[in-house]
Amino acid sequence: MLKLYYTADTCALASHIALNDAGAKYTISRISFASKEQRTPEYLAINPKGRVPALVTDKGILTETPAILAFIAQSFPKAGLAPLHDPFRFAQVQAFNLYLCATLHVAHSHRMRGDRWADEPASFSDMQRKVPDSVGACYRLIEDNLPAGPWVMGETYTICDPYLFTMAQWMEADGVDPSRFPKVRDHRRRMSERPQVRAAIAEEL
Amino acid sequence: MLKLYYTADTCALASHIALNDAGAKYTISRISFASKEQRTPEYLAINPKGRVPALVTDKGILTETPAILAFIAQSFPKAGLAPLHDPFRFAQVQAFNLYLCATLHVAHSHRMRGDRWADEPASFSDMQRKVPDSVGACYRLIEDNLPAGPWVMGETYTICDPYLFTMAQWMEADGVDPSRFPKVRDHRRRMSERPQVRAAIAEEL
Repeated sequence: MLKLYYTADTCALASHIALNDAGAKYTISRISFASKEQRTPEYLAINPKGRVPALVTDKGILTETPAILAFIAQSFPKAGLAPLHDPFRFAQVQAFNLYLCATLHVAHSHRMRGDRWADEPASFSDMQRKVPDSVGACYRLIEDNLPAGPWVMGETYTICDPYLFTMAQWMEADGVDPSRFPKVRDHRRRMSERPQVRAAIAEEL
Repeated sequence: MLKLYYTADTCALASHIALNDAGAKYTISRISFASKEQRTPEYLAINPKGRVPALVTDKGILTETPAILAFIAQSFPKAGLAPLHDPFRFAQVQAFNLYLCATLHVAHSHRMRGDRWADEPASFSDMQRKVPDSVGACYRLIEDNLPAGPWVMGETYTICDPYLFTMAQWMEADGVDPSRFPKVRDHRRRMSERPQVRAAIAEEL
């Protein structure tokens, strides 16, 4: 049985939705950032990085959202969550998710997690001021390259969709106006109507 | 025929080495950061992100190092560069590469690319001062979890190896003493002796 360690309002939601999309059987376990549970010896034994998500499988524990999403797609091939037999199209799916992970999420993290990369309060303020621009630039690139839809890869729903939806939850808090990015905004609304998404969000409350 | 856009001394080296490991036929094209070639309309038409690497294939263009590395492994299965038929082990390979991409490389980038996330010179200096610690913490986690070797995944060489080697080129410039991380240091030496690595470095000069 799979077990997902998550924290509400984090990128762990993407893996959570994908588990529902896959029809997987799983349990979830909440890690409280407020009580710094991710830094306890118990959780560091599960994920030495002290982050979420972590997915416990019968073979061991996985981390890193794009890797977990690809694992879910490959482990539940009947769900059709990625083009598993076309290396180029699979790489396109992965490249999209990589951009969310290593560019968009990283830009977002400078709003609240500046102490990963600097020490001075003035630097944190400077970083926070830049977030609307740096995150907005990511959405500009995504919007300009997104197909008409309904999904990130076009007609076919993939593991890109729950990940973009998860990131897009943070637009307003990052000072990014969704109305500037109508394809992203419509994708977010479309996703929010899916039962698999509603169930994941309800489970995390 | 594959074509790799690269800049010397960047993470593009990882994909370049992997192409050699795969026995792929390819050409390379140098993009000069010094003359801001990555921001020209010509290059932005290839990669709208204005970054390297970009891999031109007969089906289209791929970006993002971990996605390109997985593409190379899947496109040249006989080279055995990833456990392609075991979703869990494939995810482990990907998770390692994701950590290099989204945590180690991002920490490193705060030394020279602070203007992605802040605007004030004082912030850039603060970020630069923190790089030895933040990058060093990444190598601490890698070192503590690396198997005895000879390769990142143990006995079998994978697409993790050229990527770790590429990142480890930057240790000294990031103020990280390799002698604190003997497994990483020995891996770097072992990699530097491989003909596929020597050839890639020579081609980029």
